[in-house]
Amino acid sequence: MQDEQLAELAQQLRVDAVRAADAAGSGHPTSSMSAADLGAVLLAHHLRYDFDRPEHPGNDRLVLSKGHASPLLYAMYVAAGAIDEEELLTFRKHGSRLEGHPTPRLPWVDVATGSLGQGLPVGVGMALAGKRLDQIPYRVWVMSGDSEMAEGSVWEAVEHASFERLDNLTLILDVNRLGQRGPTRFGWDLDAYARRLQAFGWHTVEIDGHDVRAVDDALSEAAGTVGRPTAVIARTEKGHGVAAVADQEGKHGKPLSDVSDAIAELGGVRTARIEVQQPPPARVLHERHTGGLTLPTYDTGDEVATRTAYGQALAALGSARTDVVALDAEVGDSTRTEYFAKEHPGRHFQCYIAEQQLVAAAVGMYTRGYVPYAGTFAAFLTRAHDFIRMAAVSRASINLVGSHAGVAIGQDGPSQMGLEDLAMFRSVPGSTVLYPCDANQTARLVAAMADLPNVSYLRTSRSDMPVIYGPEEDFPVGGAKVLRASHRDRVCVIAAGVTVHEAMTAATVLEREGIPVRVVDLYSVKPVDAGTLQSAADDTGCLLTVEDHRTEGGLGDAVAEAFSDGRPMPRLIRLGVRNIPASAAPAEQLHASGIDAESISAAVRLLVAEAMVRP
Amino acid sequence: MQDEQLAELAQQLRVDAVRAADAAGSGHPTSSMSAADLGAVLLAHHLRYDFDRPEHPGNDRLVLSKGHASPLLYAMYVAAGAIDEEELLTFRKHGSRLEGHPTPRLPWVDVATGSLGQGLPVGVGMALAGKRLDQIPYRVWVMSGDSEMAEGSVWEAVEHASFERLDNLTLILDVNRLGQRGPTRFGWDLDAYARRLQAFGWHTVEIDGHDVRAVDDALSEAAGTVGRPTAVIARTEKGHGVAAVADQEGKHGKPLSDVSDAIAELGGVRTARIEVQQPPPARVLHERHTGGLTLPTYDTGDEVATRTAYGQALAALGSARTDVVALDAEVGDSTRTEYFAKEHPGRHFQCYIAEQQLVAAAVGMYTRGYVPYAGTFAAFLTRAHDFIRMAAVSRASINLVGSHAGVAIGQDGPSQMGLEDLAMFRSVPGSTVLYPCDANQTARLVAAMADLPNVSYLRTSRSDMPVIYGPEEDFPVGGAKVLRASHRDRVCVIAAGVTVHEAMTAATVLEREGIPVRVVDLYSVKPVDAGTLQSAADDTGCLLTVEDHRTEGGLGDAVAEAFSDGRPMPRLIRLGVRNIPASAAPAEQLHASGIDAESISAAVRLLVAEAMVRP
Repeated sequence: MQDEQLAELAQQLRVDAVRAADAAGSGHPTSSMSAADLGAVLLAHHLRYDFDRPEHPGNDRLVLSKGHASPLLYAMYVAAGAIDEEELLTFRKHGSRLEGHPTPRLPWVDVATGSLGQGLPVGVGMALAGKRLDQIPYRVWVMSGDSEMAEGSVWEAVEHASFERLDNLTLILDVNRLGQRGPTRFGWDLDAYARRLQAFGWHTVEIDGHDVRAVDDALSEAAGTVGRPTAVIARTEKGHGVAAVADQEGKHGKPLSDVSDAIAELGGVRTARIEVQQPPPARVLHERHTGGLTLPTYDTGDEVATRTAYGQALAALGSARTDVVALDAEVGDSTRTEYFAKEHPGRHFQCYIAEQQLVAAAVGMYTRGYVPYAGTFAAFLTRAHDFIRMAAVSRASINLVGSHAGVAIGQDGPSQMGLEDLAMFRSVPGSTVLYPCDANQTARLVAAMADLPNVSYLRTSRSDMPVIYGPEEDFPVGGAKVLRASHRDRVCVIAAGVTVHEAMTAATVLEREGIPVRVVDLYSVKPVDAGTLQSAADDTGCLLTVEDHRTEGGLGDAVAEAFSDGRPMPRLIRLGVRNIPASAAPAEQLHASGIDAESISAAVRLLVAEAMVRP
Repeated sequence: MQDEQLAELAQQLRVDAVRAADAAGSGHPTSSMSAADLGAVLLAHHLRYDFDRPEHPGNDRLVLSKGHASPLLYAMYVAAGAIDEEELLTFRKHGSRLEGHPTPRLPWVDVATGSLGQGLPVGVGMALAGKRLDQIPYRVWVMSGDSEMAEGSVWEAVEHASFERLDNLTLILDVNRLGQRGPTRFGWDLDAYARRLQAFGWHTVEIDGHDVRAVDDALSEAAGTVGRPTAVIARTEKGHGVAAVADQEGKHGKPLSDVSDAIAELGGVRTARIEVQQPPPARVLHERHTGGLTLPTYDTGDEVATRTAYGQALAALGSARTDVVALDAEVGDSTRTEYFAKEHPGRHFQCYIAEQQLVAAAVGMYTRGYVPYAGTFAAFLTRAHDFIRMAAVSRASINLVGSHAGVAIGQDGPSQMGLEDLAMFRSVPGSTVLYPCDANQTARLVAAMADLPNVSYLRTSRSDMPVIYGPEEDFPVGGAKVLRASHRDRVCVIAAGVTVHEAMTAATVLEREGIPVRVVDLYSVKPVDAGTLQSAADDTGCLLTVEDHRTEGGLGDAVAEAFSDGRPMPRLIRLGVRNIPASAAPAEQLHASGIDAESISAAVRLLVAEAMVRP
């Protein structure tokens, strides 16, 4: 296309963005208008994408990190013929696919955006997949705003991209000078961004973002740059093209007030449709299943840490399935992800100490068809909470693994203890939360996770624990194991992970004292086995949960929720970590937090003495 | 001190670090040994600190961001005469103040570290307080490891520090080349760090970190640099001084194996005690109370958003108390923090879109005696989860405010909806979680937060809602309001925030149908008013919670927990957000998620029809 046509296309995108926001009565037209020339040139000359086949493995990826500029993206879809004008005007309405911020309800959107600073980290995951896994020359284009460059997650991604020499990745930075509530730190000082990106090893091109020739040349330069990622840093005006809003504060996130004048000023409604370049033929290398999984097995009575079983099972899974990848945040020796790394170095990704990038890379790889397992200490997954939240909105199926759960880690102290992770993961919509107590159980659950939808979480422990299940035992997701039961049980102790072993010890002691106690291993914290819990409630009337986690949001809450459909509730007592632990040996920690065998026994005795359980 | 003496002191610190880890049987001696010369020179010549008066306002601040090098810090305390050898050897033992990672159980530790990448952001908060609030010339020294430079939070802080020209802040970067599981990205390429930091506007000095003269000169240069922060980038050897471990992989986080040989190689045990420079006289400018608080008031029946009441109350609080400060993450127009900014610009801090830095700055200011209120969208506080978690370990009293709660925000869609925030904050130890439904209630709670310990959270809403309480009404933390009650109530609906109004509407409809319903406004989600809930349970036997939040971890769980001391439990049914919302109008959202008045009425009718409530 000629420059004049490109400029016309950009005006069309502006007009359509203005129209969409006007129809919605809300939205971000001015943030769309700044980037319209960038979007027009990208769509017309650089993006290689088959809109009829969004699953085409050769398609470029386009991530609109500044997700509030969704009207621009949707206007681009109109120009590409992917959606029609009528649908454009459903923007932000109930039932429309055109949400306020893009989500994968649209087939051309790989990941939800709208929480700023997430597009580039996810793009890094896609670009890594392209380079190292797919080996397909698709490009990843990430369009970001200048405000979001303040997010640390962006710099995790900037570092990772240059370290991995991701020359298939381009950042298109729309420097429109104005954030939501006023000027950004650097205004139109493009050099400020360029200096920083260059120092991190990026190639940079600074341009006038409203000069379509300059944009076209810059995107070509990006595509032609070898050995490092490129940032196209574009000076733009927010609201460009309409004098009433252009480059003015207070015009963020609202429709234009005089729309017909604005459209006239932009040259009126246009209906150009363009042919987007087709991707080159490409073939996916991996297959979802190659069969023949042989999980590691453990002998009952042996002592094995569940983190060790995780590493060994993941390595085995990687041998059986070529779509499984593993990601580490520089603690693979602790999480045992290193076992996978040794056997499958080509599918192992070191993210260094950057947990947001860790989760984002997993999401990016999921969009390319892989089954990622990303691990770090459970405590440090909280660092990536917003990315986990957005992964759920993206309907991304990723597996996250948190080791070093709870006070049971011992001397290292509270900074290293995962004590809030179950609460965090239970609140993720559609999530699965698993917490094994035994090596064989861990291995089975690691394998099961590979086929689960949405965000799945596995909580592992640092210390060796006795193997109590045989290798043939089955552990369905959503199930529970009754480890000890009789008709005379007066209380049911519900435990998971390390507290299962404490509960079994307590039950033995209590049995000797004439207090029979049921013990349930609630390895599937979400979904929870309501049937087993109901039986326990029916039989004993009194449930005692014991967890190496805060009393809020974890096992206790999961059990309570199982009865939240209105059925009568049993008595429910919770033991969990209420203190702020210090350093101490693991057994001392369990005792100090009141979740060891002795504390369980004492609690049950108290319930009996206070006549809170059936006689 | 002469260079020889400094070098001797460094060896003493190494020996003591080795001894401490040996006594503990765990810990990180090699990470301490790399930084021993840095620590020795800092302590002997640069730190101005009265160890007998850690509360002295003129004291420098020392933050050991690489918290696993705690043996070095404790050895420095021994050298300064703050603790004795006997206590040093209690390292990591049950009951000791010398935890695996430093916490404020020690009076000279301002903030807990151990989650990497947090020291510099918190140090930025302290340095901001020194410059803009205290106006006292204390210096903030942050010692970091090279591995943690991969954390995005570090770069949020790097950017913020240079933008604010924090020349009272020095980063001492211990580049020992080895992370936990192997080499860092850049090894000993000091220039890689210097280039990045310079591009962000920092002054940098590259040195041999084992040359005490070079260290001394560099720290002097840092202290003398005006207008920008300085990074002293030191090439060091992990395990320096003991050939068996020096610069070797696989020696992270474990005691030395042959300790007596190692101590001999280091020149034996020394017992030097040094006089640390006293801080200059200094006086705190702010006072904790100056009285005369006049909160804004609202007329019942008016429509006011709770976020607006928050902003107005905070501005009023700022007029009454000079210790109150407000922090924004570039959304102050949305959160209404801008009202405070206009009236008290000197105590308002713009952190741009960097939520980790936002919370870290609040923690840093708390350590200097201030009462921070830090706000952003509730959804984006998840970005700072790990910082919130660590703030609790630091026993920091900070107030966090999340606006745009729930699906009620409407068209912007799920990326902007706080739906997991109650779960996150409930699991924080010692936290308070408040969720008002009305402007007068909000104002009272904003004022109450100023005097609460630990992490406090206020959840505010975007849309206008009717004022239902008079301005004289009292709202104690830990309380609840019974908005509607009769002896005949068959169900008790428990709501908070927007759902209070939905519940009241439903109750009116149900009353007409002959189904009297109690309504409780559970504005204090944690601590929860167990008494009011018990009465409701006694009177009705059936509790229905309705929340604009995920069904996990929020209101429903808070109510369940109130009964977790073993008392008989009522029936408990939960309405909450189980879907992944799209764009729609607020009322459509509440309906689609099943938490509007119609959904509440329908649920109650079903309970009556199914005979799940008392006749």
